[in-house]
Amino acid sequence: MNRNDQQAYDRGTSLFSPDGRIYQVEYAREAVNRGAPSLGVRTNDGVVLAAQRRTSSPLMEGDSIEKLHKLDDYLGAASAGHVADARRLIDGARTAAQRNRLRYGEPLGVETLTKDLSDEIQETTQVGGTRPFGAALLVAGLDGDDPDADPRLFQTDPSGAPQEWRAVAIGSGRDDIQEFLEDNWTDDLTLDDGVSIAIRGLLESEAELDADSISVATITTEGYEVVSEDEIDAVVDEHAPEDSDDDDE
Amino acid sequence: MNRNDQQAYDRGTSLFSPDGRIYQVEYAREAVNRGAPSLGVRTNDGVVLAAQRRTSSPLMEGDSIEKLHKLDDYLGAASAGHVADARRLIDGARTAAQRNRLRYGEPLGVETLTKDLSDEIQETTQVGGTRPFGAALLVAGLDGDDPDADPRLFQTDPSGAPQEWRAVAIGSGRDDIQEFLEDNWTDDLTLDDGVSIAIRGLLESEAELDADSISVATITTEGYEVVSEDEIDAVVDEHAPEDSDDDDE
Amino acid sequence: MNRNDQQAYDRGTSLFSPDGRIYQVEYAREAVNRGAPSLGVRTNDGVVLAAQRRTSSPLMEGDSIEKLHKLDDYLGAASAGHVADARRLIDGARTAAQRNRLRYGEPLGVETLTKDLSDEIQETTQVGGTRPFGAALLVAGLDGDDPDADPRLFQTDPSGAPQEWRAVAIGSGRDDIQEFLEDNWTDDLTLDDGVSIAIRGLLESEAELDADSISVATITTEGYEVVSEDEIDAVVDEHAPEDSDDDDE
Amino acid sequence: MNRNDQQAYDRGTSLFSPDGRIYQVEYAREAVNRGAPSLGVRTNDGVVLAAQRRTSSPLMEGDSIEKLHKLDDYLGAASAGHVADARRLIDGARTAAQRNRLRYGEPLGVETLTKDLSDEIQETTQVGGTRPFGAALLVAGLDGDDPDADPRLFQTDPSGAPQEWRAVAIGSGRDDIQEFLEDNWTDDLTLDDGVSIAIRGLLESEAELDADSISVATITTEGYEVVSEDEIDAVVDEHAPEDSDDDDE
Amino acid sequence: MNRNDQQAYDRGTSLFSPDGRIYQVEYAREAVNRGAPSLGVRTNDGVVLAAQRRTSSPLMEGDSIEKLHKLDDYLGAASAGHVADARRLIDGARTAAQRNRLRYGEPLGVETLTKDLSDEIQETTQVGGTRPFGAALLVAGLDGDDPDADPRLFQTDPSGAPQEWRAVAIGSGRDDIQEFLEDNWTDDLTLDDGVSIAIRGLLESEAELDADSISVATITTEGYEVVSEDEIDAVVDEHAPEDSDDDDE
Amino acid sequence: MNRNDQQAYDRGTSLFSPDGRIYQVEYAREAVNRGAPSLGVRTNDGVVLAAQRRTSSPLMEGDSIEKLHKLDDYLGAASAGHVADARRLIDGARTAAQRNRLRYGEPLGVETLTKDLSDEIQETTQVGGTRPFGAALLVAGLDGDDPDADPRLFQTDPSGAPQEWRAVAIGSGRDDIQEFLEDNWTDDLTLDDGVSIAIRGLLESEAELDADSISVATITTEGYEVVSEDEIDAVVDEHAPEDSDDDDE
Amino acid sequence: MNRNDQQAYDRGTSLFSPDGRIYQVEYAREAVNRGAPSLGVRTNDGVVLAAQRRTSSPLMEGDSIEKLHKLDDYLGAASAGHVADARRLIDGARTAAQRNRLRYGEPLGVETLTKDLSDEIQETTQVGGTRPFGAALLVAGLDGDDPDADPRLFQTDPSGAPQEWRAVAIGSGRDDIQEFLEDNWTDDLTLDDGVSIAIRGLLESEAELDADSISVATITTEGYEVVSEDEIDAVVDEHAPEDSDDDDE
Repeated sequence: MNRNDQQAYDRGTSLFSPDGRIYQVEYAREAVNRGAPSLGVRTNDGVVLAAQRRTSSPLMEGDSIEKLHKLDDYLGAASAGHVADARRLIDGARTAAQRNRLRYGEPLGVETLTKDLSDEIQETTQVGGTRPFGAALLVAGLDGDDPDADPRLFQTDPSGAPQEWRAVAIGSGRDDIQEFLEDNWTDDLTLDDGVSIAIRGLLESEAELDADSISVATITTEGYEVVSEDEIDAVVDEHAPEDSDDDDE
Repeated sequence: MNRNDQQAYDRGTSLFSPDGRIYQVEYAREAVNRGAPSLGVRTNDGVVLAAQRRTSSPLMEGDSIEKLHKLDDYLGAASAGHVADARRLIDGARTAAQRNRLRYGEPLGVETLTKDLSDEIQETTQVGGTRPFGAALLVAGLDGDDPDADPRLFQTDPSGAPQEWRAVAIGSGRDDIQEFLEDNWTDDLTLDDGVSIAIRGLLESEAELDADSISVATITTEGYEVVSEDEIDAVVDEHAPEDSDDDDE
Repeated sequence: MNRNDQQAYDRGTSLFSPDGRIYQVEYAREAVNRGAPSLGVRTNDGVVLAAQRRTSSPLMEGDSIEKLHKLDDYLGAASAGHVADARRLIDGARTAAQRNRLRYGEPLGVETLTKDLSDEIQETTQVGGTRPFGAALLVAGLDGDDPDADPRLFQTDPSGAPQEWRAVAIGSGRDDIQEFLEDNWTDDLTLDDGVSIAIRGLLESEAELDADSISVATITTEGYEVVSEDEIDAVVDEHAPEDSDDDDE
Repeated sequence: MNRNDQQAYDRGTSLFSPDGRIYQVEYAREAVNRGAPSLGVRTNDGVVLAAQRRTSSPLMEGDSIEKLHKLDDYLGAASAGHVADARRLIDGARTAAQRNRLRYGEPLGVETLTKDLSDEIQETTQVGGTRPFGAALLVAGLDGDDPDADPRLFQTDPSGAPQEWRAVAIGSGRDDIQEFLEDNWTDDLTLDDGVSIAIRGLLESEAELDADSISVATITTEGYEVVSEDEIDAVVDEHAPEDSDDDDE
Repeated sequence: MNRNDQQAYDRGTSLFSPDGRIYQVEYAREAVNRGAPSLGVRTNDGVVLAAQRRTSSPLMEGDSIEKLHKLDDYLGAASAGHVADARRLIDGARTAAQRNRLRYGEPLGVETLTKDLSDEIQETTQVGGTRPFGAALLVAGLDGDDPDADPRLFQTDPSGAPQEWRAVAIGSGRDDIQEFLEDNWTDDLTLDDGVSIAIRGLLESEAELDADSISVATITTEGYEVVSEDEIDAVVDEHAPEDSDDDDE
Repeated sequence: MNRNDQQAYDRGTSLFSPDGRIYQVEYAREAVNRGAPSLGVRTNDGVVLAAQRRTSSPLMEGDSIEKLHKLDDYLGAASAGHVADARRLIDGARTAAQRNRLRYGEPLGVETLTKDLSDEIQETTQVGGTRPFGAALLVAGLDGDDPDADPRLFQTDPSGAPQEWRAVAIGSGRDDIQEFLEDNWTDDLTLDDGVSIAIRGLLESEAELDADSISVATITTEGYEVVSEDEIDAVVDEHAPEDSDDDDE
Repeated sequence: MNRNDQQAYDRGTSLFSPDGRIYQVEYAREAVNRGAPSLGVRTNDGVVLAAQRRTSSPLMEGDSIEKLHKLDDYLGAASAGHVADARRLIDGARTAAQRNRLRYGEPLGVETLTKDLSDEIQETTQVGGTRPFGAALLVAGLDGDDPDADPRLFQTDPSGAPQEWRAVAIGSGRDDIQEFLEDNWTDDLTLDDGVSIAIRGLLESEAELDADSISVATITTEGYEVVSEDEIDAVVDEHAPEDSDDDDE
C-alpha cells in the first residue's frame, strides 16, 4: 500500500485499513523502537531486568531517567518508548499492586498484572479520541514469596497483546539483542549468568556503553534488588571490547 | 467500485456504502484472515478445537500465544485475528461464564454465550467512535454436564452474526482447510477421528508445521482437555508428508 | 444528481441531500436487497412466513442461518439483509414480547410491536454517530389467542416506516416475488394455499432452490409452527420445473 | 450562490450560509415536497383534513399508509413528507395529548400542541448532530368539547415555525392545490362544503385519483370522524372529469 | 479577505478568523436582515412597537405570523429574522417573566430580561455544536406599573450584545427606516406621535404596505395594547402616497 | 509561515502550530484590537478608567454601549473587543464579587478577581469545542475600604495571562496610547492628573473625539465614581487641538 | 519527513506519526523555547531558581510577569513558555501543596508534586480534544523542614516526563545556558555560589540583561527567599562585561 493510501487509514485507532491493519498501533510500536533498549532474562533463580539509560546532559540525575521500576516486593518492570506513557503504565501497575495487597492481603500475580495492563492498553486501540500507549513494558517477578514460586517474565505491546518470554528485548536495537539472547539463553542459567547475559545483551546493540548508562535489577525470592554499578562494571570490562568487535562485523 | 469511491465510505462503522456494505466490517475480516488459522470439529463425543501458534522467537513461551482457551468446565474457545481483540472477547466470555454460575448456579449455554458475544460485537459495527473487533472466535462445548448434552460448535464474525457449524476453520488458509473439512467430515466421527481431522486440517494450509506449533483441545462430558504434544506428533508424523505433497500441487 | 454531488450528502444519517433524500437510509435498503429473500402471506386462517437460507458451506448448521424466528406464542418474524442487524432487531422484539407478558399479563400486539421496532429504527436515521439498520423484518401473528383475533402482517423498513400487507416480499429478487404475490393472492386463501404460494414465491426468484434451502412457518390460533421439510418438498417438486422455465425467460 | 459555494454550508443544521440561510432546513422542506399531498380546510362547523395515499403495491393495506391521524377526541393531524419522521411527530403529539388529559383532566389545545411540536422541531435545526424532521403536519381540531369552541387549523414546518390557516396544503403539488383553495375558500362554508373542497383540492394536483387513494376526516364538536369511501366517491365522480381538463391546461 | 479564505473560518461559532471576526455571527445577522422589518419608538408616555407581516397566502391567519408579542403586563417584544428562532427566544422571555412573578412577586425588569436573553444568545456564539440565533428582538416596556417607571427599549443581536435605544429598526430595509427615525425622533414625542412615526417608518422601507400588513402595539402604564387596524389605516392613508414618492427617488 | 501553512493550525484552540503558537488566541487578540480603546491609569489616590464609546446611531442610548463597569464598591472594569464576550466576563466578575461578600463578608481582592477571570479564559484556550474570549478587561480597584489599601490595575488577555500595570491601554490605537502613557505617567500623579492623562490618552488615538464619546470613572477609597461629562469636556477642550496636530504628523 | 507528510499527523494529541512521534508535544516544546529562560541550580545548602523577565512596557509591574513562584514553605517553581499555561500548572501545584498540608498535616514532597503535575500533563498528550501544556516548570525545594532534607530540583516537560537535575535551564537560549551550567556546576557549591552561577547563566544567553530583568529565589531550610535586586546587581556588574565577550565568540 503506498503512502497516500496508507494515510487514508492511519489517523485514528478506530479504523482498520483495507488489509486489516491498525496503523496507529504500528506507529506506536515505532515509538517503542525509538527508545533506548530494555531487556529481561528469566533464570531458574529469578528474573533479571536491564536497561540502557540515555542522558541528555551530565547534570541530569540518573535516577530520574531510570527505566527499571520496583512495583511491589516481588514485582518489577522495565520500559522502553515514550517516557511519559511508560510512566503512566508503571504508575498504574504500582497502584494495582498496592490495591491488591490492601484488598486481598496478598501480592498481585505477575500474569494477572500483565493482563490488567494489557486490557487498559487494548482499550486505547479500539475506541476513538485517544492514541495508543507509545511504550512497552517488561513485567517480571514471582507470584509472592512462596519459595516454590516460579520466576516469570512478560511483555506488554502497544496493541494490548501480552506475551510470556524466557528472555526478551524491547526498544532500539531490539533485533540484535534478541538474536544474542536466543544464542545465549539456556534453561539452566544461574542468576549471575542472567545478569551477565543481560548486560552483554545491551552491549550488543551499543558497544560503547559504560556502566553508568546501564541499570540492572533482579527479582528473586529475596525480593527486588538493584545490581551495583561495580558489578555492572565488571561485566562491561570483561565483555565490551570483544563484543564490540563482533558487532562491527 | 473503484478504490477512490470505496475510500469515501470505509472510514467508519457508522456508514453504509451505496451498495449496502459496511467496509470497516469487511476490513476487520481481513484482520482475521491475517491471523494463524484455528478450527473446530464437532463429533458425536464432543468438540475438537485446534489452532496453529506462530512464534516470533524460540524464547517466547508457547502458552503466551495460546489460541485455545478454557472458558468454563464444558466451554472452550479458539481464536484467529488481532490477538489483543481476541483476548478481550475471550476475557468477556470467561467473565460471563463465571457470572452465570454465580447467579444461576448452572453453566452458561454454548449458544447463549455466542449470542451475547455477538451482541457486543454488533454494537461496535453500528455506533461511531469505535472500530469492529478484528478477531473471530470458535465457541465450543456442551450445555453443562448432562450426559445427553449435545456437543455444539459456533463461530463469531466481526459483523456480529453468529453461525453454528459441524466443522469450521477461521484465519489464514481458511478456504483450503474448510474444503478439507468438507471432504472429510462425516456424522459418525469419534473424538479421535475429530482430533486427527483437526490436525490434518491445519497441515492442509501449512504442511511444514511441527507438533509444537499446534494446539489441540477437546470438550466432552469429561470436560475441557488439552491434547498432549505426543498425540499431536503421532498424527503429524503420519500425515504431514503425503499431505504436503498434495498441498504443493 | 451525479456521483460527486451525491457523495457530498451520503456520509451520515443526520444529513438531507438538496432534493430531500437521506442517502444512508437508501444505502441501508441496498443492504436489505443484498440478502436472501423472505416473504409473508396473510390468509384467513393465519399468516405464512417463508425465507430462503443461503449456506456458504455444507458444514454450516441450517438453523444458524435461520431467518424465521418465533417471537412469542402467536408472534413470528422473517428477516432480510445484514444478518447481525436483523438479529439485534429480532432480539429486541423477543425481549419486548416477554416484558409485555410479565408486566401486563397479556401478549404484545403485532402492530404495537412493529411500531416500537420502527421507533427504534427511525432514531438511527436522524441522530448522528450511528448508521441505520441494514435489515428489514416481516412481523406476523395474531393479537393473542382470541379465536377471533385477525391475522396480521407488517413490514419494517430501514427508514423506520412500518407498513401493513396482505402479502409482501423483502430481500433480493423482491420485485419478481412481489409481482407473483400480486398475481396469486386472493382474500379467500386457506393456510395451505398460503404455504403453497409462499414457497412458489421463493422459487419465483430462484428456481433451482431445493427444499432444505427454504424455511416456512405459520402463525395461527394454534400458535407458531414450523412447516416440515417434507411438506416443502412436495410443493417444490410440483412447481419448480414449470416456474423455472418461466423464470429463465 | 453556485452549487460549490452552497455545498460549503449545507452539511449541518448548526451552520448559517453567508446569506443567512440554513440549507438543511430547506432540504428538509424538499423532503416534504416529495411526499403525497395533504390539506386542511377550516369551516364554521369544524375542520376537514384530506390526504392522498400512495400505494406501492395493491397488496399493501391502505391503513398502514394512512396519513390522517386521530390524536385525541377533538384533535387530528395530516402529514406529508418522510413517513418515518411524520410518524415520530404524530406519536409525540398523541402522547402529549394523553399526558395533558391525565395531568390536567382536560384536552390539550390545538395551538398549544402545535407550539410544543414546533419547539421540538426547532431544536433539531439549531443543535448539531441531528437532522431536521423531513415532514410537515397539519394539526386540526377544537379546544375541547365546548360547543362554542372554534375550529382551528395549524401547520408545522421543518424550520419549527408554526402557522395558522383557514385552508392549506402541504406536499407535492402544493402550489396548485393552494391556489385552488384560495379561489374556493369562503368564510361561510358548511362542513359538507369543506369535504367537497378538500377532495377537489387533491384532484387538482392529480386528476386521476380514485376514491380509495383519498382519505378524509372531519373534526367537529361530534369528535374525529372518518369520511366514508362512498361519500368520497360521490365527490370524485362529480368533479374529477372537469377538474382534470382544467388541470391539463 | 477573499471568499476562499473566508470559508476557512466560517464553519462554526467556535472559530475566530485571522482578523478577529466570528463569521457565523455575521451570517446570522444576514438572517435577521432577510426578515420583514420591525421597529420600536420610545416616547415619554410609553414605547411603540411596530412590524410588517409578510403573508405567503391570503388564507393564512395573520395572527400566526404576528411579530409583536405581549410578554407580561408591561413587557412586549418585536422580532425580525428566522421565525422559529425568534419564537424560541420569545417563549424563553415569556417563561422568564412568569417565573419572576411567581418567585419574587414582581414584574421582571426590561433590562434584566434583555440581559438574560443576551446571555443565552452569547452562549450559542462561543461553544461549538450549535449555530447562533438567526433572529433579533426588540424588548420594550416599563419596569412594573409604577406610574414613574421609565419606558425603555432594548435590542438583542445575534452576537449576544444588548443595546438600549430611543428608536430603532431591525430586519430588511433597516438602514432606510433607521435614517427616518433619526430624522424624526425627538425627546418630546407623545404616544400618538410615536405610533405615527412607527407606521411611517415601516412605509419608508416599503411604500405599498397596506394597513393589514402592519401590526402596532403600545406599552404604557395602561399595559400592553394592540393598536387597531383603523388607527393604522388612518396613518397609512395620510402618509403612504408622499412617502412613496420620496422612496422611489 | 505562509498563509496556507498557517491555516493548517488555526482552526481550533486545541492545536499548537509547529513554531509553538496558538493562532486562535492571536486571532482573538485581533478581536480586541478591533474594539474602541479603553485605558487605565493608576495614581497614588486611586485608579482611573477611561474608554471610548462608539455609537452607530445618535438614537442609541450611550449607557448601553458603556464600556466602564462598576463591579463592587471598590472594584471597576473597562473592556475592549467583542462586546458580548466582554459582557459575559463582566457579568462573571460581578457575580464573583457578590458571592465573595456573601460568603466571606468581605470584598473580593483585585488580584484574586483577575486571576479567577484568567483561569476561566485560559480554559477556553486549551480545550476543543469552544473559542477564546475575544475581549480584554482592565480590572481596577482597591482591596476593600481599608484607607491604606493600595490602588491596583490589572489586565486580562485572551490567552488567560493576567498582568499588573501602572497604566495601560487596550483596543484599537493601543500602541499610540501606550506610548503616550509611558511618556506621561509618573509615580506622583494625583487623581486629577490621572483623569487628565486618561482622557488625553484617548484623544491620542482619535483626536476628534468629543466628550460624550468618552467615559471616565475613578475608584478610590470613596468608592467607584463616574466622572461628569463637564469635567471630561474641560480636559478635551484644553487638549484636543494640540494633540490632534501631534497625531497627524 | 517533509512538511506535507508532517501535516498529516500534527493536528492532534491523539495521533502518532508513522515514525512514532507526537508532533503536538514537539510543538508545545517550541512554545517553551519561545519563552524567556528560567534555570535552577542545586547546591548543598538548597536550590537556587532564577529567571529572566521580559517586559513589553516600562509601565508593566514586574511582579505581574514574575516567573518564580513560592508554592509552599519549602517549595518553589520557575516557569518558561506560554504564560497562561504555566500559571495554570503553578496554581494546580499550589493547591496540591495546600491540600496536602490540610489532609496529612505535612508538606508535599518535591518529587511527589512533580509526578502529580506530570500525570496531569501526560493526560493532555494522549486524549483528543485538548492541546498539551505549552509550558515547562522547574520544581525545587526540600521535603519539609527536616534539617537533613536534601535539596531537590525537578523539571516538567510538555510530554509529561519528569526529570531530576543538578542544574538545568528551560526556555529560549536553553542550550547555551545548559552548556554554561555543565561547565560550572560542581558538587560542592555553596548557596552563594549557586546564586552567582544562576545569574551568570542567564547572562550567558543575553548579556545585556540588567538586574531588574532578573529574578532569583532560594529554597533552603530557612524556607523560600527572594534574592534582593542589590545582590543580583552585584553579580551582574561583576560578570556581565566579560561574559558578554565570551558569548560573542
